[in-house]
Amino acid sequence: MIVPDILDASAEFWKKSLPHISIDCVVFGFHANSLNVLMLKLKSADNWMLPGGYVNKNEAINDAAKRVLFERSGADKIFLNVFGVFGTLNRSEDFFKNYPDDLWHKQRFVTVGYYALVDHTQVTPVTDSYSDKCEWMPIDNLPTMVMDHQEILNKALATLREQLSYKPIGYNLLPETFTMPELQSLYETILGQKLNRGNFYRKIMRYNILVKLDEPRKGGAHKAPNLYRFDEENYKKALNDFNW
Amino acid sequence: MIVPDILDASAEFWKKSLPHISIDCVVFGFHANSLNVLMLKLKSADNWMLPGGYVNKNEAINDAAKRVLFERSGADKIFLNVFGVFGTLNRSEDFFKNYPDDLWHKQRFVTVGYYALVDHTQVTPVTDSYSDKCEWMPIDNLPTMVMDHQEILNKALATLREQLSYKPIGYNLLPETFTMPELQSLYETILGQKLNRGNFYRKIMRYNILVKLDEPRKGGAHKAPNLYRFDEENYKKALNDFNW
Repeated sequence: MIVPDILDASAEFWKKSLPHISIDCVVFGFHANSLNVLMLKLKSADNWMLPGGYVNKNEAINDAAKRVLFERSGADKIFLNVFGVFGTLNRSEDFFKNYPDDLWHKQRFVTVGYYALVDHTQVTPVTDSYSDKCEWMPIDNLPTMVMDHQEILNKALATLREQLSYKPIGYNLLPETFTMPELQSLYETILGQKLNRGNFYRKIMRYNILVKLDEPRKGGAHKAPNLYRFDEENYKKALNDFNW
Repeated sequence: MIVPDILDASAEFWKKSLPHISIDCVVFGFHANSLNVLMLKLKSADNWMLPGGYVNKNEAINDAAKRVLFERSGADKIFLNVFGVFGTLNRSEDFFKNYPDDLWHKQRFVTVGYYALVDHTQVTPVTDSYSDKCEWMPIDNLPTMVMDHQEILNKALATLREQLSYKPIGYNLLPETFTMPELQSLYETILGQKLNRGNFYRKIMRYNILVKLDEPRKGGAHKAPNLYRFDEENYKKALNDFNW
C-alpha cells in the first residue's frame, strides 16, 4: 500500500477542516436505462469508495458537500440532500489502521450522507491527486467498497425509492418529450422491479404532471406511440404537495 | 444571565465528547387531538430549546441520540430517526457569545436532527442540572426558540408530514380500537389541515391496514360509529412497501 499523498495531506487537513466530521456523496446517474452511481478509487486502496471529503472550518456543511462533489467529479449545480448520518464506532478507524503516522485519518469520523439523482451527461468524472479512477458504475454490478460505504449506498438507494412513492421524478432525466413506456422504464430502473403497465399509467396520471402531445412519435414500423411532456408548473406543485 | 453549571461542565465535555458535533431531538407527542413537541428551558437562557446534547467519544451516534433524549426526558425505547443536519456558520456560536470562558460551547457545532412521534403517556419529561423546565408544548403555540431550533423543528415537521403521505401512522398513538373520524383527526392534526372525509376513507382503505370490528361503539345518543383496529401484519408490511 502506497500512501504518500495522504500522509503529506494530514497536517493540512488539521489546519483547515473540522475534525470528526466527514461527508460522503451518493450520486445516482440515469442514462440509457441504467441506474449508475459515481464511485472512485484511491491510489492508496484496492477497493472503491463513494466520493467524500471534509468540512472546512469556515464553510457551511451543505457548501462543503457541493465542493467535495465538485472536486471529485467536476459536477456543480447538483442539488444534494442529506439522507443519513453514519456514526458507529470504528467505521473508519479500522480502514485507516495501516496508515500509522496519519493522525487525521486515524481519528473517529461521523459521516454525513448526501445524495442526488442526475442526468449522466451533467457530470464528467475527474480524478484528483488522491484518486486514480472516478467512474459511473451500474448499481447492480458494484465492486467491493471500503468501510461502510456499501451500507451508505444502500440507505441512499432506499431513500430514493421511498421518494419515488410520494414525489414525481423524471424532469431533467428524460428528454423533453417521451413515451409512457420510457417513463415507466425510468421508474422500473430505479425501483429495480417490473411494474404493471395499467397500474403505472393510472398512478402517474394521478399526479396530473403530464401533457399528452397532439403528434405521436414519427417513424418505426409499429403504431406510433403517444408522446408526453412534463407540465412544469404542475410538476413543481406536485413536488411540494402531500398526497392527503 | 447565570451560567455556573455550564461553565463547570466545559472541561468535562472536552474530556468525554466529540467536538463540533451535537444532537438535537424533535419528539412529537400526540395526545387528546393535539400535536405537541418536547421542549426544555435552560436555567441559563431566557428562551426554549429542543432537548440536545453531545456524542461520547466511545459511543455510536444513534446511541448518543437515545441517551440524550433519555437524560432530558426520561423516555427510552423511542425510535429516533435522522431527518437532517444543520451546519451553517455561526448557528450556535452567536448564542454562546456571552459565555466568554466556556470554550466547549463557543466552538462551532454541526448538529444532527433526530425525530420521533410518540404516545404522550410514554414520556414523563424530567429536568436535569442544566434545565429548569422540560415540557410538552403544542406545535401551534410555541415560544421563541434559541439558535436555529425553530428551523430544525420546521424541518422535522415537514419530514413527518411527508412520511404521512407514503407510510401509515397511528399504531401506538391511537387506542386499540378507534373510529374513522378519530383516525382522520390524527392525520388532520399532524398535517395541520382539514381533510375531505370521503377522500380520507378511500385513501386509508387502500393501505389495507384496517380491520372493521363487528360491534360498533356502545353508548351515545347518535347512531353508533363503526370501530376499527389495525391489522398488525399488514400494517408492518405497509411500512416497508412502496406505493408503486
